Amino acid sequence: MSIRIGILGYGNLGRGVEKAVCASDDMELTAVFTRRSPESVKTVSGAKVLSADALADMKDDIDVLVLCGGSATDLPVQTPKYASMFNVVDSFDTHANIPSHFAAVDAAAGAAGKVGVISCGWDPGMFSLARLYSHSVLPDGKDYTFWGRGVSQGHSDAIRRIEGVRDARQYTVPVEEALAQVRSGSNPELTTRQKHTRECYVVAEEGADKARIEKEIKEMPNYFADYDTTVTFISEEEMKASHNTLPHGGSVIYSGQTGDSHHVIEYSLKLDSNPEFTGSVIASVARAAYRMNREGMSGAKTMFDIAPKYLSPLDDAELRAHLL
Amino acid sequence: MSIRIGILGYGNLGRGVEKAVCASDDMELTAVFTRRSPESVKTVSGAKVLSADALADMKDDIDVLVLCGGSATDLPVQTPKYASMFNVVDSFDTHANIPSHFAAVDAAAGAAGKVGVISCGWDPGMFSLARLYSHSVLPDGKDYTFWGRGVSQGHSDAIRRIEGVRDARQYTVPVEEALAQVRSGSNPELTTRQKHTRECYVVAEEGADKARIEKEIKEMPNYFADYDTTVTFISEEEMKASHNTLPHGGSVIYSGQTGDSHHVIEYSLKLDSNPEFTGSVIASVARAAYRMNREGMSGAKTMFDIAPKYLSPLDDAELRAHLL
Repeated sequence: MSIRIGILGYGNLGRGVEKAVCASDDMELTAVFTRRSPESVKTVSGAKVLSADALADMKDDIDVLVLCGGSATDLPVQTPKYASMFNVVDSFDTHANIPSHFAAVDAAAGAAGKVGVISCGWDPGMFSLARLYSHSVLPDGKDYTFWGRGVSQGHSDAIRRIEGVRDARQYTVPVEEALAQVRSGSNPELTTRQKHTRECYVVAEEGADKARIEKEIKEMPNYFADYDTTVTFISEEEMKASHNTLPHGGSVIYSGQTGDSHHVIEYSLKLDSNPEFTGSVIASVARAAYRMNREGMSGAKTMFDIAPKYLSPLDDAELRAHLL
Repeated sequence: MSIRIGILGYGNLGRGVEKAVCASDDMELTAVFTRRSPESVKTVSGAKVLSADALADMKDDIDVLVLCGGSATDLPVQTPKYASMFNVVDSFDTHANIPSHFAAVDAAAGAAGKVGVISCGWDPGMFSLARLYSHSVLPDGKDYTFWGRGVSQGHSDAIRRIEGVRDARQYTVPVEEALAQVRSGSNPELTTRQKHTRECYVVAEEGADKARIEKEIKEMPNYFADYDTTVTFISEEEMKASHNTLPHGGSVIYSGQTGDSHHVIEYSLKLDSNPEFTGSVIASVARAAYRMNREGMSGAKTMFDIAPKYLSPLDDAELRAHLL
């Protein structure tokens, strides 16, 4: 019997989860749920679209509900709410609020006897696992996380909010020199500026003051002020032709010791599509949530709590025979 | 209270485990156990050395027994035997026999209510995890494992068995071109010869026929015949000066798709000391075995069955706050 998946929220991430679920033999997509008018949404796979209000009556029709909303306002409400009805998975990534989000989901999921897995994807997610495994194996060491080269949607949005900007795409780029230093095992102390640069491609409104836009970007606190930032104005055509995908990736590099012996562990990703890869991670976690719940587990979880075998559609004996 | 560890077998791996246990605040080394005469063994840490025969009376003194014998003849007997008395961890790596070894350990550990974790280290071990996570997240893809540059002790031993060879060190070296092809995402089909070369450094006995030794090495089936192998004769002094450590490492590269989007995942290790890193992995698994058993789990396990959190000395809330 297939694992029946629901998706709430149908943006880039929702489409990424849809693609992964449809490509998995052991899962089926029951429906996409939206807070918009269902008639206004067409799914890529042809899966049906229902109003989010329909979820309350579908407790027996869905094994795992995947929450594809944003971390700022959607997930803090949605994940606990739906964890009281379904096994759920989200990609909550507001780091400072993870403890309170975890507690809220744990209370709801625990009371309902459901599993609620938070903060899944690649960072938090696969990169978190790389950090945890490395720290556990080599307690005497230091982890470094580099992101990119890839599109940061949050930074692109921040530029778009500047007056006179029609469109923007921001690439986060790791500094090669810093990467080389870390890989050498020299354990450097690196400032924010030494680790990443930011490349901005901007389509300005006609007649806009480009010098002012560039200055506003470069001086924007938190987003750009602490980085070496380049701003390049391009045409709308060039934006469409050369910046129409969402690649990303990066590396977690761990540099550790056993006495005088040095060891470097690196986990790296090179992704053509950030939302499709993130959606694929989430789909495998949905499988795990379903299986763990069937074995009697409940409450909030992160990928740290999931034995790796639960993520795979293969059975334990096959895993040992082919992948160990 | 510290986790009390015993080590059976005191070669390179036993010393690696000893170092890792002594560096962990939450573990203590109860004793090293040997089948040799205990007086003949001196431990690096000063830990006491007891006869392996003493183990039968120490069920209440040791939480996890780490088995550091060889996969060929030691572990198939020792792991099931001691899993009936202790939680155990081994590094069994004879791939074809993993199913039968798992079954034997499962029967013994299950009956005794203990946890027996087999095949821990980096391959099998960390590399197996990299393969499993990648396959689970991106079912449509292919994994490639490259080893080296590093010393293969099995291949070094095979050379030492040739007549006229006094000492030998064999380095397994991945072919850069093959690595580059795989990292590009082109999913090449690679033969054994295309993936790795073998570099042999040999100290010959005085007057030995070097041409014959070189020929015997290069034509040795399974070990060298399928590889491009180079043989370099060196002096005993040079062997001691330049080849006195056991570095190793390698990469698991996974090349996968979501529709038209391509993704490359790479997990790589660069290790100054193979036995010390392997010992560190095993020590973290010993911690997990102890904690899982305290929670009521029993039977044979592999690293696939271990939720990552169990490997870390930090508690769950700390892990979420600092590493997620």
